[in-house]
Amino acid sequence: MERIEHRACFGGWQDVYRHESKVLGCTMNFAVYLPPQAEKERLPVLYWLSGLTCTEQNFITKAGAQRYAAEHGIILVAPDTSPRGDAVADAEGYDLGQGAGFYLNATQEPWARHYRMYDYIVEELPALIEANLPASAARAISGHSMGGHGALTIALKNPGRYRSVSAFSPIVAPTQVSWGEKAFTAYLGEDRASWKAWDATELVKSAPEKLPLLIDQGEGDEFLVNQLRPQLLQAAAEAAGHPLDLRLHPGYDHSYYFIASFIGEHVAHHARALRGA
Amino acid sequence: MERIEHRACFGGWQDVYRHESKVLGCTMNFAVYLPPQAEKERLPVLYWLSGLTCTEQNFITKAGAQRYAAEHGIILVAPDTSPRGDAVADAEGYDLGQGAGFYLNATQEPWARHYRMYDYIVEELPALIEANLPASAARAISGHSMGGHGALTIALKNPGRYRSVSAFSPIVAPTQVSWGEKAFTAYLGEDRASWKAWDATELVKSAPEKLPLLIDQGEGDEFLVNQLRPQLLQAAAEAAGHPLDLRLHPGYDHSYYFIASFIGEHVAHHARALRGA
Repeated sequence: MERIEHRACFGGWQDVYRHESKVLGCTMNFAVYLPPQAEKERLPVLYWLSGLTCTEQNFITKAGAQRYAAEHGIILVAPDTSPRGDAVADAEGYDLGQGAGFYLNATQEPWARHYRMYDYIVEELPALIEANLPASAARAISGHSMGGHGALTIALKNPGRYRSVSAFSPIVAPTQVSWGEKAFTAYLGEDRASWKAWDATELVKSAPEKLPLLIDQGEGDEFLVNQLRPQLLQAAAEAAGHPLDLRLHPGYDHSYYFIASFIGEHVAHHARALRGA
Repeated sequence: MERIEHRACFGGWQDVYRHESKVLGCTMNFAVYLPPQAEKERLPVLYWLSGLTCTEQNFITKAGAQRYAAEHGIILVAPDTSPRGDAVADAEGYDLGQGAGFYLNATQEPWARHYRMYDYIVEELPALIEANLPASAARAISGHSMGGHGALTIALKNPGRYRSVSAFSPIVAPTQVSWGEKAFTAYLGEDRASWKAWDATELVKSAPEKLPLLIDQGEGDEFLVNQLRPQLLQAAAEAAGHPLDLRLHPGYDHSYYFIASFIGEHVAHHARALRGA
């Protein structure tokens, strides 16, 4: 892996790396914030999954999370949202193809070769981070919108792998909303039964580990009614006895101004799980 | 003035307005952060002047200043960096024309008609803010790079008008560096004597009010040696007995990661001047 950005930030370093991903079969960028404590010890890692159209840049330039990571001594890792490059399949529109990987493993052509963001996030990227950076194996995961879907499904599918999970404005039931239906039809095919393995509202019904879910959602979010629908997850979690803290915030929209306003509370939440006894 | 963006942020509102500027003869955008306290009282205002190539968006999306403004009860106003539009003169390159107004009043063609950012920032914009928003007449000013030059020169030229001034990585001596020489030749003409009225290092020699100057500068800044040269201002301030706190920060570069890391201290500095007895 090659470091392509290196900028002092809150006493630590906001870096961006480029590497050849075997899982995705393409060159990928990911961002790493190393807080000042990383000079002396191995630190836990909070993975952040971004939403539709984003790259590794959105979170690191707009969320203001570095301040809190420096306070708590946590590494932040923000990957890109899909495989990239001229050799990678793409589509018209912002909600399919590059920038819209949906954190799953595609089974259909022309996507199956490269669109394996699930394996990338769960296996390849943490292995790379833990082998090459001062990172411990203590992991937490969070994300926004499509990335909130990614964080929730990845945590629910991997008991024991993450100490905590949270999301902002997540797509909680992709099998029931048009963003998910479009993407899953393309990546997974017409058989809707196969979609359930990538839907937090389905997964929570039988999750073997009751990892508490923290979700912040703005009530002024322009996608709330048609694409996000957190009440679907809330009902399923309640029925399954799965702990969920769904916090609704009047006025806030889908933007990074919402994330910036509450990311400090999420980092503190993860810090308690990652650094607590 | 028309509100074109309105987003909840740290309990307040990050807004963007559009208006017809009489001074500049064009349509302008400016950003306003109203902290939660603005619902109940008139608040002091910190004006932020951005650098080359920026619009009203850079500071509000990248600096993370809203958190501190909400803590201290201060309105943030971030204007654009030049007049804009098809009818406004422009030039090739990022350092002259649109995006590069240098916060002065141009005297030369084709710039003199629209390039009057000094009058806009000192007179028209505060009048608009104070007439239409819950803003008091207590003002502070800060900025970055070209905007740091703007903040310093505007404060030095207007004794009593600002309660405090600060800058990140400012151009302190535009008459002695290539960015300034190019812009001043175009906007002000070949007579270098006329340039001195727009150069902080010149102005500090005879400033009637000894308003303390707070400057943060990264030692890893790629423009430090050729364009910024804060030691020129430091020597002039020392000779004139003008208080200057120049803080050099190892490793930090010219980016918003630097601004984000220290903007909290600047907002607190201005809050002491704006809200103190």
